[in-house]
Amino acid sequence: MYSKINPRIIEFLNEIAGKEFVYTDSESIDKYSRDETEDFSFPPDVVVKPANAEQISRILKFANEQKIPVYTRGGGTGLSGGALPVYGGIVISMERFNKILNIDKDNFQATVEAGVITQVFQEELEKDGLFYPVDPASRGSCFIGGNIAECSGGPRAAKYGVTRNYVLALEFVTPTGDIIFTGSHTIKNVTGYSLTQLLTGSEGTLGIITKIVFRILALPKYKKIMLVAYNSIQDCISSVAEIYKKGVNPAALEFLEKAAIKAAEAQLNKVFPNNDSEAQLLIELDGNDETQLDNEVQAIADAIEKYSPVDVILAEDRSKMEELWVLRRSVGEAVKSIATYKEEDTVVPRAKMPELLEGIRKITGKYGIRAICYGHAGDGNLHVNILKENLSDEFWNKNIRTAVKEIFELTVSLGGTISGEHGIGYSQKEYLSIALSKEEIYLSKQIKKVFDPNNILNPGKIFT
Amino acid sequence: MYSKINPRIIEFLNEIAGKEFVYTDSESIDKYSRDETEDFSFPPDVVVKPANAEQISRILKFANEQKIPVYTRGGGTGLSGGALPVYGGIVISMERFNKILNIDKDNFQATVEAGVITQVFQEELEKDGLFYPVDPASRGSCFIGGNIAECSGGPRAAKYGVTRNYVLALEFVTPTGDIIFTGSHTIKNVTGYSLTQLLTGSEGTLGIITKIVFRILALPKYKKIMLVAYNSIQDCISSVAEIYKKGVNPAALEFLEKAAIKAAEAQLNKVFPNNDSEAQLLIELDGNDETQLDNEVQAIADAIEKYSPVDVILAEDRSKMEELWVLRRSVGEAVKSIATYKEEDTVVPRAKMPELLEGIRKITGKYGIRAICYGHAGDGNLHVNILKENLSDEFWNKNIRTAVKEIFELTVSLGGTISGEHGIGYSQKEYLSIALSKEEIYLSKQIKKVFDPNNILNPGKIFT
Repeated sequence: MYSKINPRIIEFLNEIAGKEFVYTDSESIDKYSRDETEDFSFPPDVVVKPANAEQISRILKFANEQKIPVYTRGGGTGLSGGALPVYGGIVISMERFNKILNIDKDNFQATVEAGVITQVFQEELEKDGLFYPVDPASRGSCFIGGNIAECSGGPRAAKYGVTRNYVLALEFVTPTGDIIFTGSHTIKNVTGYSLTQLLTGSEGTLGIITKIVFRILALPKYKKIMLVAYNSIQDCISSVAEIYKKGVNPAALEFLEKAAIKAAEAQLNKVFPNNDSEAQLLIELDGNDETQLDNEVQAIADAIEKYSPVDVILAEDRSKMEELWVLRRSVGEAVKSIATYKEEDTVVPRAKMPELLEGIRKITGKYGIRAICYGHAGDGNLHVNILKENLSDEFWNKNIRTAVKEIFELTVSLGGTISGEHGIGYSQKEYLSIALSKEEIYLSKQIKKVFDPNNILNPGKIFT
Repeated sequence: MYSKINPRIIEFLNEIAGKEFVYTDSESIDKYSRDETEDFSFPPDVVVKPANAEQISRILKFANEQKIPVYTRGGGTGLSGGALPVYGGIVISMERFNKILNIDKDNFQATVEAGVITQVFQEELEKDGLFYPVDPASRGSCFIGGNIAECSGGPRAAKYGVTRNYVLALEFVTPTGDIIFTGSHTIKNVTGYSLTQLLTGSEGTLGIITKIVFRILALPKYKKIMLVAYNSIQDCISSVAEIYKKGVNPAALEFLEKAAIKAAEAQLNKVFPNNDSEAQLLIELDGNDETQLDNEVQAIADAIEKYSPVDVILAEDRSKMEELWVLRRSVGEAVKSIATYKEEDTVVPRAKMPELLEGIRKITGKYGIRAICYGHAGDGNLHVNILKENLSDEFWNKNIRTAVKEIFELTVSLGGTISGEHGIGYSQKEYLSIALSKEEIYLSKQIKKVFDPNNILNPGKIFT
């Protein structure tokens, strides 16, 4: 179906990007064959690091003519195998697109290249008192272009929304090599279909994003963190909706069960407060008025009282708060280091979280599988890590799919969906039809064909 | 190209929707031939008011087979002719889709049918202390489904965003008659391409939206309005960016030049404060802490000082504030009642507004045309009403297009676009290529074909 890479193709890439930016050595091939998703490994034939959109355009025109699969690579932190070169071919690494082009303080906008690391972007903004709230756990190494591709979320979505709420415009290269600038430097825009929004969350299947225009915010002046410990997982998760009912909208509201906290402690060799309680909430409040934050702390304390928390800790010191976040961010990696795993990125309406969690317990219990849960309770996004541990390969292979299917069916029945922020990518595509009707999948596949008639860009993703 | 309506087709519609919901009388035909856009009139052959998505599905399947043009009609308040039946055929009026299906206080979501009037929805939410911030001037009669189609904005976009920022999921009927539910009841969702976002702002060309799931907010407890009068239009508009630089993010920041205020006064037979000043800002602040609002009032007063406002009025009384908004909302209609007009919906980055306004003055001056400007200065969205008044038909017809083209070219050169919230629809489609590249238009037309292979739904819109 696809053409094999041959010396002539390598020579062509050398000409376009320069020989020093084209890699076929085994170390490079190995590096770009994996991301952070399970134990998948799909080696590309060649890795190229182009310098600009024009070079990408030339590569894509060529690949489209020659029918060579092309995969775009960001920071390699994907959790659904979205960037994995499952059919081999060319990996285009966006490492050289690492410039913050403009921070426009007058209009609260920023223009960045797609290979800028999310945390680098955030910290550059903070120097000017500005704020980009989308905060994936991988922010220290993920690329902002990958955040667009997967419509990243993170802990602040309930208050601040997800990536798509901040994208005003994109420059992208179509699979046939056209360079298109979508949108405008404005919040309002009803000028044709929003390709900006269509591309956002399309997991690198419709084009290669090279540049992004973001709407940004003023950095809130004050921050406080509450840690609330419970002796019952259900009490913990049930208290979440009460907080919002009080009219408080925290910047983040994270749920961690004991096993998740223990894993993070072991990984970082640090101790988390109340680490023997069954579950905890990490609640971050932010705003420009400190008294207001104090009132919110009190309102939360009142709201959760009926669920009998065993302890409430308030952190106001910057370094203490950052330490708590470091622990929180390490949970994903820590849990995954325990054993072979399968991670689900379930999301339901916030108030349905107790039902989801209970249902997951029943399903995993039925199959005798252990799952560790944690995630963004404020927006109903629960990460479920199913661990293989000492289960036999046979048992694991036989039951894992059925268990995941049942969890996803439950999720959708609660008004939710099967991926909140990790994407469908490669690892979840067999479950897509649980969430989407065949008519919606049909339309989506047709849209893919419009952009990529020869199916050369990120083939093998989203759709089966 | 399209089939003509004949008695057999009317009979078919009678069967589906019931005879009492099918109209061919001249009064109905006349009513549905117009919206609020200039003096366009395109009579449909028949108007039908279906009761549910299944009836729409049957009508569309039939129309698709028979190649009959179908136009969806909301409240008829469109400002780009987006709902006008320019090829005749069937108008589907959404009047009977008028139910608020669910207000989910636990999850801050609401599910509504597409024919609910925006203000009705807002007021129903307010009873529960909830808030839907998108606030088009036509809110008293526009349908929420039309707001989705045109991605309505209004005065609160700089702080609260536009319609697409609140749409979580849609039920829509494809032009070929499939009923599809996109999205989920969650803020996060990366499960296939976002048809939710693609449909939003697609001006009724990709499907008929029947149901919407919205994210909603808690209603802010306090509100204050400042009215600031200037003796110079440029001083007035230049002061806007200063306010944001102070870190204040008003709920609304409206710009009104004298002629706009005078028109509203005449229409409502009321008097606006400082009505002899050259231009005014109407600034609304909202929040949950009154002291914070007072601080913001002071910060704004400091920020604008260097542009020498002639007067600053503070309104804190609910009825006084509502009166000011009634005046503000009436401006559009009032200005348009002066003479034959052509309205543009330009939008630029906020800090570029002074340049835009100056450029518009130069262009209209060059052609000896009068333009009245007003709009949402907080998000850079300036409505430009070019008036024919005593210009000859010949002069008007000869010069208006060139003048509009020049204004749009200026808008795009400033990083903006040609429609912020009214859409391209019928009236602006000849200008689309000023904002979008031919490659983007090509992709968009192909997307249209995926959804509507026979081009029966809202043909004659967006694209030439």
